[in-house]
Amino acid sequence: MKSILPKAVRELARELTRLPGIGPKTAQRLALHLLKQPYALTSTLGNAIKNLHANVRTCNTCFMLAEEEYCAICTDPSRDTTLLCLVEDPLDIDALEKTDSYRGLYHVLGGVLSPMHGVGTDHLTLNELYARIERDQTKELIIALDHTLESEATSHYIMNHLQGKNITITRLARGLPTGGDIEFADALTLGAALSGRKTLQQPNTSV
Amino acid sequence: MKSILPKAVRELARELTRLPGIGPKTAQRLALHLLKQPYALTSTLGNAIKNLHANVRTCNTCFMLAEEEYCAICTDPSRDTTLLCLVEDPLDIDALEKTDSYRGLYHVLGGVLSPMHGVGTDHLTLNELYARIERDQTKELIIALDHTLESEATSHYIMNHLQGKNITITRLARGLPTGGDIEFADALTLGAALSGRKTLQQPNTSV
Repeated sequence: MKSILPKAVRELARELTRLPGIGPKTAQRLALHLLKQPYALTSTLGNAIKNLHANVRTCNTCFMLAEEEYCAICTDPSRDTTLLCLVEDPLDIDALEKTDSYRGLYHVLGGVLSPMHGVGTDHLTLNELYARIERDQTKELIIALDHTLESEATSHYIMNHLQGKNITITRLARGLPTGGDIEFADALTLGAALSGRKTLQQPNTSV
Repeated sequence: MKSILPKAVRELARELTRLPGIGPKTAQRLALHLLKQPYALTSTLGNAIKNLHANVRTCNTCFMLAEEEYCAICTDPSRDTTLLCLVEDPLDIDALEKTDSYRGLYHVLGGVLSPMHGVGTDHLTLNELYARIERDQTKELIIALDHTLESEATSHYIMNHLQGKNITITRLARGLPTGGDIEFADALTLGAALSGRKTLQQPNTSV
């Protein structure tokens, strides 16, 4: 079934289908939408995509996306260098930074161990992590990986490796999300919220 | 909440959110996905978007997307010029052509009348349609607009205008889609399928 659409539209649609979550129909719609936009807008988008690789690199220390050799966080002297937060990808750092409640450093692991998807220790920045911990004399490593089976396995792998070292390892708290409704929470989340419950008041035994 | 992501990533994400159906989170994910791709791929996509306007125009006759002054269908001498199919946008033509069961010409209306969205007769190619019908002595106009209230109104508007002319006006059949399940069909579709039912066998009265 040959398409009757012009070559430029078909080529753009084909390129767009390479993006995650964009099928052939959506790609055609997007291409047509772009055609209806003024030239200035498509030109800006085209350039932004073309120049992406040239203007972005990864930080030599933490593997966060950076504009220079080192990222804005690693070069910030006000950061607590004894506190290290391990994340899976750069967007996680962006999300954590937006909380404005962390002043330590980060380390981007680049994924999690996943034998099924062929991701082994060599594909992650594990050796760089261990070297950093040694060099910076990190006091606490906060594991901030997504809550999945593969992340759990990766956490355990890292904990095993750091056993016996003078470092505290913590992970993000699990429980109900803010605004979360108990009625609609899944069993695992609710179970985690129960087992991780916090004491609000102790019995008064001083009378 | 300032993002810690590099400027090039933020700019690309901002441009991507201008596309329909792409929110800030999806845009960030797409930008990160593009970063992970080889340069050749993002370069191709960037160029495809940049060159879109330069390489695509609309056909002078039917307003289909074209590479030249006239589209591939209008310049095809084997087409039946007395048969005209009215569609809303170029993707509809692509879909109809893929059926391989139409040999007439097309006319892209460019939308449907919608006072609520400020789309009046001047925004559509109605005058060009009437002129074509006159010039080509069109015998049949097939209205292939989407099945919505606004399309219905537009169809009636066109039918009113063509009243008294020597032209047959038809519309696409309505009913159950192929593979459609009666149980899951909505009431309107099922109603249309009922009222448009086809006779399979007549009572044999010749005995």
